Amino acid sequence: MSARLSRNTIRRRVNFYEVDQAAIVHFSNFYRYMEEAEHAFWRAAGLALSDGGALGFPRVAAAFEFHAPLRFDDEFEAELLIAAIGRSSLRYTCRITRDGTPIATGTMTIVCVDVGPPMRAIPWPAAFVDRIEAAQLTA
Amino acid sequence: MSARLSRNTIRRRVNFYEVDQAAIVHFSNFYRYMEEAEHAFWRAAGLALSDGGALGFPRVAAAFEFHAPLRFDDEFEAELLIAAIGRSSLRYTCRITRDGTPIATGTMTIVCVDVGPPMRAIPWPAAFVDRIEAAQLTA
Amino acid sequence: MSARLSRNTIRRRVNFYEVDQAAIVHFSNFYRYMEEAEHAFWRAAGLALSDGGALGFPRVAAAFEFHAPLRFDDEFEAELLIAAIGRSSLRYTCRITRDGTPIATGTMTIVCVDVGPPMRAIPWPAAFVDRIEAAQLTA
Amino acid sequence: MSARLSRNTIRRRVNFYEVDQAAIVHFSNFYRYMEEAEHAFWRAAGLALSDGGALGFPRVAAAFEFHAPLRFDDEFEAELLIAAIGRSSLRYTCRITRDGTPIATGTMTIVCVDVGPPMRAIPWPAAFVDRIEAAQLTA
Repeated sequence: MSARLSRNTIRRRVNFYEVDQAAIVHFSNFYRYMEEAEHAFWRAAGLALSDGGALGFPRVAAAFEFHAPLRFDDEFEAELLIAAIGRSSLRYTCRITRDGTPIATGTMTIVCVDVGPPMRAIPWPAAFVDRIEAAQLTA
Repeated sequence: MSARLSRNTIRRRVNFYEVDQAAIVHFSNFYRYMEEAEHAFWRAAGLALSDGGALGFPRVAAAFEFHAPLRFDDEFEAELLIAAIGRSSLRYTCRITRDGTPIATGTMTIVCVDVGPPMRAIPWPAAFVDRIEAAQLTA
Repeated sequence: MSARLSRNTIRRRVNFYEVDQAAIVHFSNFYRYMEEAEHAFWRAAGLALSDGGALGFPRVAAAFEFHAPLRFDDEFEAELLIAAIGRSSLRYTCRITRDGTPIATGTMTIVCVDVGPPMRAIPWPAAFVDRIEAAQLTA
Repeated sequence: MSARLSRNTIRRRVNFYEVDQAAIVHFSNFYRYMEEAEHAFWRAAGLALSDGGALGFPRVAAAFEFHAPLRFDDEFEAELLIAAIGRSSLRYTCRITRDGTPIATGTMTIVCVDVGPPMRAIPWPAAFVDRIEAAQLTA
């Protein structure tokens, strides 16, 4: 039986249209990078977060602290970790780095819902929680 | 009976996140401005282009020629005109100006479809074509 | 002498291109709305946050909690308040509402810098801090 | 001596935030895909299109025809070809496909400028035109 997934890393390059007139990645794009890492995580776990079916995963909170800028053409890594698994919620941590230099650290909390109507929170289906586990976080 | 609409103008300001590291509006955002003007046109005609129902209006072509740059905080106008009305298609012209200075000129062709499945082109419903007419275009 | 500004509200409509396939505003756009409210705040205070000069205002943290969805064409308000003023930093609170219904609550911390190089934090110029004051926040 | 480059292809996946409420890639993002392919082309030619120096490459026209939709998580290819090289301009063709199915066909014209001020069109530097040639286009 395959191991449960607790973290996954994507690597990609900054696109020109993601950079603002201060010549750095506009801060709003970091939330998009975190979402790219999130979908890649679930794909690596053998699941699809958006199947167009009865399940939805709305975000209830998302935050970033910015340590250093990212510039056009920079290659960076976005590591997504499972920080905590609740009954119907999940909290991620996202670490964005460039060649090991910390760039930004994010967190995001999502909830598993039956999209309804009415939309309502439901416990994580076994198909999801059986594939993942919380990461061992170190300082 | 109210007049048919052939043109409509929106006025707005360039947002910081729409500007790239050359300190000008990234060209991809002009297509979004044209779409904003499009929805404002239909709203002014008393109709909604996106009702979440059986009708859809996919884009089949969109183009812009860029004459002069637009910068952060600039106020500009986007005028949308009906260039031609076909049986199930429609062609717009969009003129973006800043204080009368031509900034960009766009065109966009959309098709009226029954979203299906299968999706298929259908004639414009009377509710739409009865509210609009082609604009008298001048050089 | 004119009063110091502690809060300012913008009102605008959700654009089609800001909505995702769950038919709600993509969460990354709320950070852009907060930035729009930020620039409108400084404009209302008679100042420009981006003058292309020696001063810069990088973001060091930004967060949102999402209470309810916003949909295409919804009109909403984004109120920006000064939560705290530090020697070279500033913390905003942003309240996004639709007809009084809480949609999302954000916070953002920025730092005043001399863009250099090297970039370094500097005390807020008097021109800025003389025009603003922290808002009286109520629950 | 290495061959001149006339075409280059990138492969990537549709991100969730690029899809609209019709569950298809928002048409404005195709212009961003074309730009990604453009920067990848120049990188493959051993050059950087944005060096932050005296040269700039503003877009004077960009167009797309849309043949079929692209959906979340779809993998697609964007092939960029040099359609024509002028004294100070350049025209690209961009073919977006998914598993060989034509999705969209774009064109874009850029101009080589000295960013000034004043900004003015200049002949392509040898470092650029010595590395590229027009592609043999077939129907």
